[in-house]
Amino acid sequence: MSDLATDLPAAAAALSAEDRAGLVNALKYYYHGRINFDKLQLLAGEHVDVLQTLSTKVRQRVEVLKVLQSQHDELETKFLEERAQLEAKYQKLYEPLYTKRYEIVNGVIDVEGITAEDALGEENKADEEKGVPNFWLTAMQTNETLAEEINERDEEALKYLKDIKWCKINNPKGFKLEFYFDSNPYFQNSVLTKTYHMIEGDDPILEKSIGTEIEWHPAKCLTQKILKKKPKKGSKSAKPIIKTEECESFFNIFNPPQIPEDDDDIDDNVVEELQNLMEHDYDIGSTIRDKIIPHAVSWFTGEAVQSDFEDIEDEEDGDGDENEDEEDDNDDEDEDDEEDEDDEDDGEEEEEGKGKSKSGGRAQTGKDQPTERPPDCKQQ
Amino acid sequence: MSDLATDLPAAAAALSAEDRAGLVNALKYYYHGRINFDKLQLLAGEHVDVLQTLSTKVRQRVEVLKVLQSQHDELETKFLEERAQLEAKYQKLYEPLYTKRYEIVNGVIDVEGITAEDALGEENKADEEKGVPNFWLTAMQTNETLAEEINERDEEALKYLKDIKWCKINNPKGFKLEFYFDSNPYFQNSVLTKTYHMIEGDDPILEKSIGTEIEWHPAKCLTQKILKKKPKKGSKSAKPIIKTEECESFFNIFNPPQIPEDDDDIDDNVVEELQNLMEHDYDIGSTIRDKIIPHAVSWFTGEAVQSDFEDIEDEEDGDGDENEDEEDDNDDEDEDDEEDEDDEDDGEEEEEGKGKSKSGGRAQTGKDQPTERPPDCKQQ
Repeated sequence: MSDLATDLPAAAAALSAEDRAGLVNALKYYYHGRINFDKLQLLAGEHVDVLQTLSTKVRQRVEVLKVLQSQHDELETKFLEERAQLEAKYQKLYEPLYTKRYEIVNGVIDVEGITAEDALGEENKADEEKGVPNFWLTAMQTNETLAEEINERDEEALKYLKDIKWCKINNPKGFKLEFYFDSNPYFQNSVLTKTYHMIEGDDPILEKSIGTEIEWHPAKCLTQKILKKKPKKGSKSAKPIIKTEECESFFNIFNPPQIPEDDDDIDDNVVEELQNLMEHDYDIGSTIRDKIIPHAVSWFTGEAVQSDFEDIEDEEDGDGDENEDEEDDNDDEDEDDEEDEDDEDDGEEEEEGKGKSKSGGRAQTGKDQPTERPPDCKQQ
Repeated sequence: MSDLATDLPAAAAALSAEDRAGLVNALKYYYHGRINFDKLQLLAGEHVDVLQTLSTKVRQRVEVLKVLQSQHDELETKFLEERAQLEAKYQKLYEPLYTKRYEIVNGVIDVEGITAEDALGEENKADEEKGVPNFWLTAMQTNETLAEEINERDEEALKYLKDIKWCKINNPKGFKLEFYFDSNPYFQNSVLTKTYHMIEGDDPILEKSIGTEIEWHPAKCLTQKILKKKPKKGSKSAKPIIKTEECESFFNIFNPPQIPEDDDDIDDNVVEELQNLMEHDYDIGSTIRDKIIPHAVSWFTGEAVQSDFEDIEDEEDGDGDENEDEEDDNDDEDEDDEEDEDDEDDGEEEEEGKGKSKSGGRAQTGKDQPTERPPDCKQQ
């Protein structure tokens, strides 16, 4: 694996994308809503005018286009429904596996092949060795994003974590994480939940998140530290001054950032800070939902860390610089990296000396000048 | 709509998520790859050790868990296949609608109801009025993200845009945008493509993007400006000095940021700048793929702008402050906002004065202390 580090740079400057759920758009959305709202209203308004300035002919064509669009949108609605059904179907199929995982992890059942002898031989450890100790703690600590949230004080409490589950919620839309705890010395709750409310649309948006209020046992709160100060000299009271202070803890995820209802007076730095906190909050939740819950065993064993890198490594190995090979049936494409430019006969440089521009060096065959709609992409 | 602006704040500080494809993680991934690689190797390495320190019993249990995990992963692979099939099925269903849209937009066919008389009456405009002039230009300009990319010089060239299509690519994974142009005075290409290479995995990552090299006609390049300077006094040549300068243009998307293969010497500011550029590049591509192509007519008419806001407005109206109502069948939950704290009987403050901690104030019924696996989430 030692050469992997040197292979990484190209992939390393890369972006996470797709299902990852845009953690960024806080800023964008904020300004979208707050600052550019008038501009967008204007854009929409202008367009109504644009339609009115169209000739009768063109307007009639647009009316037909609108019918096509609504046919598309009906299909799209069906697609989204079917996709949700497919997801639900597989969640159901995963469920018995998660249940079995729960039972083994928590010693509700034991696996075959563990004989009475084995059990007797290590009898003295028996108490700690029910199921798989520290399963969820270890799984989460192996994930970089979550490892940063878990400090030493948290570890003891997270050893009591028996299961993590998630489900979609529908009104409002979003998802809910459930953390099931064994009875423990830290807090009274047996389930802590964290709910993410999403605004659906082309771009789902995290509107807010809500966490269970933790009912800490006396002196066991992990999200606050108690500071005792000696009273000032000359103070009337001889008692020490006791102050509590918020501190870092995994359990802060149950007390997520609150969005002020009226934020007209908040300055932009505060807004940005809040957005960063929300991004981070969403990042934690989606990591638990998308990575830890479905692949907890692989995180526990460490294989998930490895495979995160193998994805990148494979990509690097298989891809390299040979951009030619990945292209398909479109003869007119020219998607080389700049480095490859010199490998080919580029024809003459243009008169104006724009080094990167080429005139007629590549095949531009007649079939690529479609008069009818061009052929579909074949690579799908 | 005027009261929408005041309703926005809570939603406005929100985050875009899910399918939006995390535009943020550039930074995270960079450091993930570059700086924390050793740490993660260590984490993975430590875990191998952790497994070896487990007792025989626990190790046997973990082996069974690993079987469960691989059963899960097989199902998950099937799920991803089925989902891809579903997507492909609907892309096929959309296709004839897109074709019809293409034909109407470009005047390949005309719509019923436009009589010869109508056409004659506006005969003098006829040339410009084939199909729906400026359809794609207008659609893109109505979208905020894309509007920022299109400057006045670009507009003239984008009037020749006849169609935009996209398809998945498989080796390497990713997607490709295709921009079909009518013959035009700006460049020779009839198709400009932009390909995004994604590294698949739990978090798809944008590895790099590649654009067609545009074959500009002489003096028509929109991504460079030509500056003519008078020669210095006393210079031997009387010719003006001609300099070209890169300038802002929509067509720069076909010349995306390049990731240096060997970036060991690059300082962090440059890395961050590169990441921002890549985020932006991905943002443009995914906006065209997910918004413009499927809903071009709605963007052209301006309805898409409106509906972006209605999503937020609906959410605001339906949700408001009533956090109580959105909770479900878990009696032990307590997910109030902090503001609600004082409304309830919290029991005594704890001895140590932790204002927010409570001891036993809430119902903790026996049924919420599961000995078997807790019941499934009902809200799915």
